[in-house]
Amino acid sequence: MNLSEYITQIQPLDISTIESTQAKLDNLTKPKGSLGRLEELALHIATITGTSNPPLESRRVFVMAGDSGIVAQGVSAYPQEVTPQMVYNFLAGGAGINALSKTGGFDITVVDVGIASAISTDHPDFMEKKVGLGTKDFSQGMAMTRDEAEASILAGIEAVLESHKATPLHLTATGDMGIGNTTPASAIIAAVTGAGVSDVTGYGTGLDDRGLEKKITVIEQALALHAPSPHDAIGILSSVGSFEIGGIAGVILASAYLHIPVIVDGFISQAGALIAALLNPYARDYIIPSHQSVEKGSLVVWNHLGLRPYLSLDLRLGEGTGAVLMGPLIDASMYMLNGMASFAEAGVSGKNERS
Amino acid sequence: MNLSEYITQIQPLDISTIESTQAKLDNLTKPKGSLGRLEELALHIATITGTSNPPLESRRVFVMAGDSGIVAQGVSAYPQEVTPQMVYNFLAGGAGINALSKTGGFDITVVDVGIASAISTDHPDFMEKKVGLGTKDFSQGMAMTRDEAEASILAGIEAVLESHKATPLHLTATGDMGIGNTTPASAIIAAVTGAGVSDVTGYGTGLDDRGLEKKITVIEQALALHAPSPHDAIGILSSVGSFEIGGIAGVILASAYLHIPVIVDGFISQAGALIAALLNPYARDYIIPSHQSVEKGSLVVWNHLGLRPYLSLDLRLGEGTGAVLMGPLIDASMYMLNGMASFAEAGVSGKNERS
Repeated sequence: MNLSEYITQIQPLDISTIESTQAKLDNLTKPKGSLGRLEELALHIATITGTSNPPLESRRVFVMAGDSGIVAQGVSAYPQEVTPQMVYNFLAGGAGINALSKTGGFDITVVDVGIASAISTDHPDFMEKKVGLGTKDFSQGMAMTRDEAEASILAGIEAVLESHKATPLHLTATGDMGIGNTTPASAIIAAVTGAGVSDVTGYGTGLDDRGLEKKITVIEQALALHAPSPHDAIGILSSVGSFEIGGIAGVILASAYLHIPVIVDGFISQAGALIAALLNPYARDYIIPSHQSVEKGSLVVWNHLGLRPYLSLDLRLGEGTGAVLMGPLIDASMYMLNGMASFAEAGVSGKNERS
Repeated sequence: MNLSEYITQIQPLDISTIESTQAKLDNLTKPKGSLGRLEELALHIATITGTSNPPLESRRVFVMAGDSGIVAQGVSAYPQEVTPQMVYNFLAGGAGINALSKTGGFDITVVDVGIASAISTDHPDFMEKKVGLGTKDFSQGMAMTRDEAEASILAGIEAVLESHKATPLHLTATGDMGIGNTTPASAIIAAVTGAGVSDVTGYGTGLDDRGLEKKITVIEQALALHAPSPHDAIGILSSVGSFEIGGIAGVILASAYLHIPVIVDGFISQAGALIAALLNPYARDYIIPSHQSVEKGSLVVWNHLGLRPYLSLDLRLGEGTGAVLMGPLIDASMYMLNGMASFAEAGVSGKNERS
């Protein structure tokens, strides 16, 4: 299928389980609503999957990797060679996402959507879906063609569909790797939400104040140059985006297409979520928001999407590290929903009549 | 030993591991500090235990249960009979703490510090440490004698020491059960921190606005009646406290005495933490703060203790449910600290010289 066929087949949430799940929650031996956001999370998972006790063992975080031509403008604290180096680190099991995935029970797939060099590996957790050898410097012209933008989204869709075909997925998560990619992320976020560039642009992996100023100027000038329509997802992605952010949008769209809850990580992944939600607003309803990142603008995106992150742990690593931390919270919410006794079962008295 | 012997033997943290742990964190393949509060958590656990890779498998949440005579003033939405009913629910595995403990890998010990009726069970997870059949109505006189206040704290200490003797503990967590116990908790918090009663008194399990007003008045009048010194932990606990809050203080003190990290749950447990920290300020350093509760005043206590909670999930159940959710975060922090590769090991380049 082509991209628009996948996109148009994403369905609105089936809300038929909401009422029965809420009734079940309200009958558990606790004051109504007293487990707060865990109850919200349980309700959301039940609504997406259509059952209050879905299988959730098969979990996979898709780490979408690519390079950004905009690094030529000096917008990152790290050299571009770190992108492939970190990919090898992921495959060797030594990165942050490897450590944190253990806690949440996630497997990892690393997808090369457009790293600037060839990755030489036959590791089973690696997928080659290269759209190009890095994007172009979008301060000078388009980051990529519209065809490439669509191809990057399809790369993410195909990664999920192929993985799902090999072993059915129950839960997906998004992650990213790409030196310099907070710059296209900020540009996309400003373009979609209409927020000021300085309100959604931060220090990335560790710029100083002068570097941040330059980064803001580069993005402002690029947005003035390309002037993408805030409703044209492909226009925004092709003018100021990056391959891996397109890939993340694809992971979200494919998950929604398959009715699988997709946990969206922080800043870079959130830019991908904006692209996905522009392409089909229903996709947003399949997103489990994870955390508010340190990176300025993270909350702007969550608010724009009408989603409230569950965690705020001052993370700014990316890779999907904040997303996989949601694994145990999802487990907790499901143990609650399906493991707790009701008032009647436990013989516990309810609230006083008078109050 | 008597109470003061335990208290005086609590030692300040041994900070000799801080520097080496921080150096290890800074050398992992991630931008420095980019895993934010997970790094803070790892550093804290390493400092308390004196090693960067401590055993943490043996985990136990101590759910301290007791009744409060103040319920005679109509300060709770639930009848007092729910306290023992919920104890049986804990032992049968049907409560919130049972469900959530699975996620964090915690065993549960329920301690009767002063339930108003006899609990009939020989369940191995139950400990009988009854100080009395519920406290007295502290709007009319002292909640308990000073001797009883000390005994309630000793009950918590002994619960931990006995458990530790049977199976060495690596990680403890506090929890509570006691209908009406947000009232003594608010009273203790106001007395210790000096905050206004209305700033630290909330809806508990589900009062309406009129009930809340009454609760505030009851607490204000009781504090005026007893006028406990803000420095006299036993004076505060005996005049407006409750047995299970004393027990929680004991769990914290015993954990500190044993150099075991103790995760403190929300509102009720936080009142216990204030009592513990008054008795020996070093005890505070062994506390892992868990979450900011919905209950008004939760953040007042964390701020007073100089601790920043990791989670904010709109919880207001108690039982230790917020504390055990820290289990996976602690695991994640330890996988990070001990499982990630260094820049040298992974052959990943560091930051650009210029930035």
